[in-house]
Amino acid sequence: MKVLQKLSAWVLMILGTANTGYSQNNSLSEGIRVNPFRIEKRILEYGRFGKDANGKTYCVAFSKADQEGRAFYIDLMKKAGLSVTIDFAGNIIGKRNGKDVAKKPIAFGSHLDMVPAGGNYDGRVGSFGALEAVETLNENNIVTEHPLQIMIFSDEEGGTVGSSALAGSMKKEALKVVSQSGLTIGAGIKAIGGDPDSLDKAALKPGDLTCFLELHIEQGGVLEKENLQIGVVEGIVGIEHWEVVVEGFANHAGTTPMSERHDALLAASKVIIAVNEAVTSYPGRQVGTVGKISAEPGAPNVIPGKVVFTLELRDLSASKIALLYKDIQTRADAIAKNAGVKISFANMNVSSKPALTDSKIQRQITASAKMLGFTYKLMQSGAGHDAQEMAVIAPTGMIFIPSVGGISHSPKEYSKPGDIANGANVLLQTILALDKQ
Amino acid sequence: MKVLQKLSAWVLMILGTANTGYSQNNSLSEGIRVNPFRIEKRILEYGRFGKDANGKTYCVAFSKADQEGRAFYIDLMKKAGLSVTIDFAGNIIGKRNGKDVAKKPIAFGSHLDMVPAGGNYDGRVGSFGALEAVETLNENNIVTEHPLQIMIFSDEEGGTVGSSALAGSMKKEALKVVSQSGLTIGAGIKAIGGDPDSLDKAALKPGDLTCFLELHIEQGGVLEKENLQIGVVEGIVGIEHWEVVVEGFANHAGTTPMSERHDALLAASKVIIAVNEAVTSYPGRQVGTVGKISAEPGAPNVIPGKVVFTLELRDLSASKIALLYKDIQTRADAIAKNAGVKISFANMNVSSKPALTDSKIQRQITASAKMLGFTYKLMQSGAGHDAQEMAVIAPTGMIFIPSVGGISHSPKEYSKPGDIANGANVLLQTILALDKQ
Repeated sequence: MKVLQKLSAWVLMILGTANTGYSQNNSLSEGIRVNPFRIEKRILEYGRFGKDANGKTYCVAFSKADQEGRAFYIDLMKKAGLSVTIDFAGNIIGKRNGKDVAKKPIAFGSHLDMVPAGGNYDGRVGSFGALEAVETLNENNIVTEHPLQIMIFSDEEGGTVGSSALAGSMKKEALKVVSQSGLTIGAGIKAIGGDPDSLDKAALKPGDLTCFLELHIEQGGVLEKENLQIGVVEGIVGIEHWEVVVEGFANHAGTTPMSERHDALLAASKVIIAVNEAVTSYPGRQVGTVGKISAEPGAPNVIPGKVVFTLELRDLSASKIALLYKDIQTRADAIAKNAGVKISFANMNVSSKPALTDSKIQRQITASAKMLGFTYKLMQSGAGHDAQEMAVIAPTGMIFIPSVGGISHSPKEYSKPGDIANGANVLLQTILALDKQ
Repeated sequence: MKVLQKLSAWVLMILGTANTGYSQNNSLSEGIRVNPFRIEKRILEYGRFGKDANGKTYCVAFSKADQEGRAFYIDLMKKAGLSVTIDFAGNIIGKRNGKDVAKKPIAFGSHLDMVPAGGNYDGRVGSFGALEAVETLNENNIVTEHPLQIMIFSDEEGGTVGSSALAGSMKKEALKVVSQSGLTIGAGIKAIGGDPDSLDKAALKPGDLTCFLELHIEQGGVLEKENLQIGVVEGIVGIEHWEVVVEGFANHAGTTPMSERHDALLAASKVIIAVNEAVTSYPGRQVGTVGKISAEPGAPNVIPGKVVFTLELRDLSASKIALLYKDIQTRADAIAKNAGVKISFANMNVSSKPALTDSKIQRQITASAKMLGFTYKLMQSGAGHDAQEMAVIAPTGMIFIPSVGGISHSPKEYSKPGDIANGANVLLQTILALDKQ
């Protein structure tokens, strides 16, 4: 049965790639296509790094599994003729010469690390898609005008560590933060061959790259739900994160009449609903989430005196986030007054600013998708990506492919081989088109 | 300044006890009064057991501090001429002979143990009030018709352990539960001189006692707010306790549109508000509390997929509790349907049934309070007490005195010396009046 399923998946994939307008191409390079079997095979092979007996995978940045996986990838890069270096932040850089030495590189890539017990597609689709683009050029004997550069960023899941360092946005203090591997980020970067002491002087500057492109799984369910093949990313949302503290008065759950209570959890519940109401009361794609909560003292027979919860707001517009926050604060003030509790918001200073992709590159990705015969839509990325860091120093574009069920950061994360190949073909054609400009 | 405060407290106390209708007494025994200084001194002395360097007291049942304290109390009992035994459940029983050997004992008492970091008045007021009643009888050379019996119950705060065992309501499995001391209840009972193996055969039976009386602090703010001296307890509320599980779907907080979420915490918040609305929608003194909550996976950037919280309902009427629970379930069902989540309630089987006090004893406590010139009201107990267990096997009465600020189970717990003496005088006069019936 499993063999049959696999066979039929391959057949569908071939049918998918066959229906890509090959015959309509008006140039040699527009006619070339990636090898879907090779990408899929490598993604599945990479899944063995950090896999435990229960089938869960712990391939977090800087871990032994991550280091083994990176060695595997570097080996493939070298076999593809790339000149490989590890930069100061532990990013893997693979260079391919272009015809014009004066031109700045066209860069593209993603990341290989994962969240604990994550999936095999987040970051990996873009990493192996990038390698596939280079190998397809190799097989078709195409040398671009611009140098090409694959960039595989370190510790994306720890907060776009490698890309923010490369873009000069990372602060020195971040090196002391303990990563999922147990190592500090500084020690982790050293462990994978980087030089965190060069943080101040080694970053890229605007103009150092012609552009940066990232292929990635959507991690949401929009493309699947709308039955579309490609997402052209308009931008990566900004994220603000607060800790909200509700202070009431803890008291005996039996002897305190309902009318005499200052129940912090009851007030917090009203704020959580107010967050949802505020966020959904404006048109747009903004999201707001309360993901973590605790009540003190936390006994069934004590009225909660204190509740702490997180508030996260995301949108492509920083002013929309500010507007939502103000609205939520106003609602919370009214709840606090009514319930006789104190509600305070503390910004956690882990915000990331909204990052817009380059409009010319958006148009080129759209043109490539159209040329290949794919259905597509312009959309935002609700998740953070290395591309948001690179957008600070280079015109940036981002390509999404569907995630089955919209599931991500889970062992259930999955993208279909045909969809992955489609994304890699859009990446390849976009590289070639931008190379001509 | 402190000395002045203390002096003025004593003066107020003497004035308070002086204004008790002494001159109106029509019998010798109605004229006798407890020594307020002695009770107060002993309560403060007892506070040293388990006190740490920060002034917090950990005198939990079965601990070293509890054992030392019990020895101190037993010593005082013996000095008061009582014949002291430890029963199978670790309860301290102090007997004083009456004139009529055929009569069953009038019993009274409370407990000495406390919650972790609790206060010095919960249980102790009733324990030292009981001893004071006996010593006042000694000093006035009064021998009652009935034998008298002080009962100091073990591990009240662990779930009325000693009293439920004595009343034959404790199940054998409860002996395996680990108490706050770290010992199992069975091992704890052994450590204080009890014999848990006799659980089946040593319990009291209906008719073994003439009655049981308990003096206790209110632990709520009703008497203080209404400026009353004595609470005549009509009954001790029943308690039902559920674990509520809300199952939604965990997903990425950035990539999941608001309209596509099955947010378990948002639904739980609505249920928490529904609990409050249901409980306050009926007339009466019922209370409902959500005291403990957790959300999984519990990260700021993940939509909660599962929320677990506690629900506790208390009322003097078991059918009122059942009605409230049904109402809450109906509201929760509607919330679940609307939010696309599953909500389930599991009864935790730690319920206690409502316990009504004896109406004749209520009338006698009221008459004693009136005779002594105290303001009073009939009220329920929202907290659990040993008296609720004793009510199963004997006509039971309970006397409340005010708690300052309604605070209890806290180092801030406090009752004024004058109020404590008032309560002990009501206890003493009620014993004497019941003795004559």
